[in-house]
Amino acid sequence: MNRLEFTHLRINAQRFKDDFQALAQIGATAEGGVDRPTFSEAHLAARHWFCQRILEAELMFREDGAGNHMACLACAEEDQPSLLLGSHLDSVPKGGRYDGALGVLAALEVLRTVKQHRLRLRFNLEAIDFTDEEGTLFGLLGSAALAGQLKGEDLVAPRGGRDRLLAGLERAGLDENGLFLARRDPQTLAGYLELHIEQGRRLLQANAQIGNVTSIVGIASYRLIFTGRADHAGTTPLDDRLDAALGASAFTLAARQVVMEQFPDCTVNVGALKLEPGAYNIVPERAVLSLEFRAADAAIFDQMEAVLLACAQAEAQRFGLGLEITPLGKHQPALMSKTMQQAISQATETLSLRHIALPSGAGHDAQSLAGLCSAGMIFIPSIGGASHAPREFSEWEDCINGANVLLQATLSFAQESIP
Amino acid sequence: MNRLEFTHLRINAQRFKDDFQALAQIGATAEGGVDRPTFSEAHLAARHWFCQRILEAELMFREDGAGNHMACLACAEEDQPSLLLGSHLDSVPKGGRYDGALGVLAALEVLRTVKQHRLRLRFNLEAIDFTDEEGTLFGLLGSAALAGQLKGEDLVAPRGGRDRLLAGLERAGLDENGLFLARRDPQTLAGYLELHIEQGRRLLQANAQIGNVTSIVGIASYRLIFTGRADHAGTTPLDDRLDAALGASAFTLAARQVVMEQFPDCTVNVGALKLEPGAYNIVPERAVLSLEFRAADAAIFDQMEAVLLACAQAEAQRFGLGLEITPLGKHQPALMSKTMQQAISQATETLSLRHIALPSGAGHDAQSLAGLCSAGMIFIPSIGGASHAPREFSEWEDCINGANVLLQATLSFAQESIP
Repeated sequence: MNRLEFTHLRINAQRFKDDFQALAQIGATAEGGVDRPTFSEAHLAARHWFCQRILEAELMFREDGAGNHMACLACAEEDQPSLLLGSHLDSVPKGGRYDGALGVLAALEVLRTVKQHRLRLRFNLEAIDFTDEEGTLFGLLGSAALAGQLKGEDLVAPRGGRDRLLAGLERAGLDENGLFLARRDPQTLAGYLELHIEQGRRLLQANAQIGNVTSIVGIASYRLIFTGRADHAGTTPLDDRLDAALGASAFTLAARQVVMEQFPDCTVNVGALKLEPGAYNIVPERAVLSLEFRAADAAIFDQMEAVLLACAQAEAQRFGLGLEITPLGKHQPALMSKTMQQAISQATETLSLRHIALPSGAGHDAQSLAGLCSAGMIFIPSIGGASHAPREFSEWEDCINGANVLLQATLSFAQESIP
Repeated sequence: MNRLEFTHLRINAQRFKDDFQALAQIGATAEGGVDRPTFSEAHLAARHWFCQRILEAELMFREDGAGNHMACLACAEEDQPSLLLGSHLDSVPKGGRYDGALGVLAALEVLRTVKQHRLRLRFNLEAIDFTDEEGTLFGLLGSAALAGQLKGEDLVAPRGGRDRLLAGLERAGLDENGLFLARRDPQTLAGYLELHIEQGRRLLQANAQIGNVTSIVGIASYRLIFTGRADHAGTTPLDDRLDAALGASAFTLAARQVVMEQFPDCTVNVGALKLEPGAYNIVPERAVLSLEFRAADAAIFDQMEAVLLACAQAEAQRFGLGLEITPLGKHQPALMSKTMQQAISQATETLSLRHIALPSGAGHDAQSLAGLCSAGMIFIPSIGGASHAPREFSEWEDCINGANVLLQATLSFAQESIP
């Protein structure tokens, strides 16, 4: 077959749907979602179920030291690198059925389709289930390990706690040292493609069926503590107070304003705020605030950080307060490769699907891979934009479209590259 | 003796100081304060110590059904009502040595001085230690019971919890029914006078030695809940959010602004604020806010309430949020009687002390009595304005001045009234 002949190929929609429904039963919650935090009983069961599907499809199964599970299809010369397709099977606690699962199943379905038609491509294919994308224990654990981005110091105090990380690894038959052995030689990787739900409302608003991701936003987190003076709230006149709540409130409003005005398409969130000591009749001495902000462009990301922190300083000063700033982690924006974006674009044209280019406001395994090889992401619409919740939902037709775009982009990429 | 002869009388400063220091040992904390929450071991010990001082002074001891302890001095005709002098011996957890204790000891000292000089007055005298002024269990419990203001429904869910209230009463040898028996016939009361620390900075700022309280502020508490929508903080554009933190922040700033501009000498406090679900990467769905405000004038108090709640509604509307308003208790402002203010004023003139008239921003037992009889309050300066904390401190000279003003105001009131 030549390239033109490939364009009529489609994944097996019924098999894909059966898989999706079977997987959604594992860790299913009463509210219609799934509860599969990393290395929970349900997650281990889902991983096992995926291995069985790989073997059933007569694909080669492989597990690396980080517990990433791979289905391998030799469809090119033995010494050719692999095009990786995948996502993750873990969920946030009480999450939805689509986040991660859809991308893993679509990847498997692409391999089955290519195998079934005995296609010969320029690259071998692998469908991968990455470990702990959601961060129950660490966040992007499997993909960071594979990309060689994991550092020993990162494991000292992971966000889920070190004891839970070690216990989780043990439950999965893994250990800490294995995480570093999962590092993969970039020479073995031709690229990475991931299908995912959008988790936002932009595709629906644009009446698009497919999103072609241009970049994955950078994410920075800070703890800000405004400090004033605790006083009797009845006997201390308003103009004689050092009220930490005022600085925190003014910053919360100003941060939104400044980002809307100066940083279009970027986001900022004050997700938590605690006043101390926290009594009706005591002027707040401390306001502890959780700040997160995201930008798709590295230069803008840095500018935004400077502007937001200066804004916090200005509001603290305005109300006579002290300010403690603690950085809690920063992931740089990751650009998706032009080649992959072109392959996705070509696939949507082939399938006559309405598509737009857009940045991803959420983090994904693709951002670990972006530094290592050509990476691309395909989004399908999320009804209501809901995600990380049982009400997460996408139309089944969009899921099939997404899987077919993954297939056609794979073929396009693996073909276009042929000299 | 005629009235002129009384003006040279002074309390026994050394005896007063010895008492103060002995009492401050009971429940003393390492930080220099006292820890005597109502019916704690330390509080029961302080109550016992006060009974012993009463008996030692050869005054009559009496306890009512609410556990209020009284020293009684018959210095007038038997059928004459009593002028009550007093305050409370309980403290907030880890409180200071002056709040309450100073007023009880000064009252005892006045009775001793009158007894020692065998004065005959128009009224009998009583020095009273009111139960649970600070509200570990209920707040103004003893004075409200004595004033007949306690209702059965108030005891269903008191702020310290019903179980703790009943257990506390039992530890003190009291019971719930007794609280209602403490109600006192107003005919038996000539008036009420209380010496207290200011708990603010206004006396020091005015360079005054004595404050003559004009009224005790009304206090209202509300729980406000701003409700929006939880969304992914990376994938939801800023202008597509219903962020509960914005309404709460805007209200916190606006409440202060509106009170400073429209309600001089009144106070407002947002003492606690909680964002839910409270994660870095989730737009806050709920903001639960603790609001308290105070005013010394009843009409202004009502206006302020209307303006603040309208302000909360406006901010909720501005950000597309819902708003739940839950009232959590309202104490009306209590005016101190002109007669008592005159008596206090005369006493400060007699003693050549610099004094100002001022409202009390804090609640006191005197507000329970104000509806029942002529009530007055004497303030002395609080260094740094600190209170409800171990660093609570007043100069000893000011304490003696306060006790002498209490003595002279007592004599002035009990004499002036003679036909």
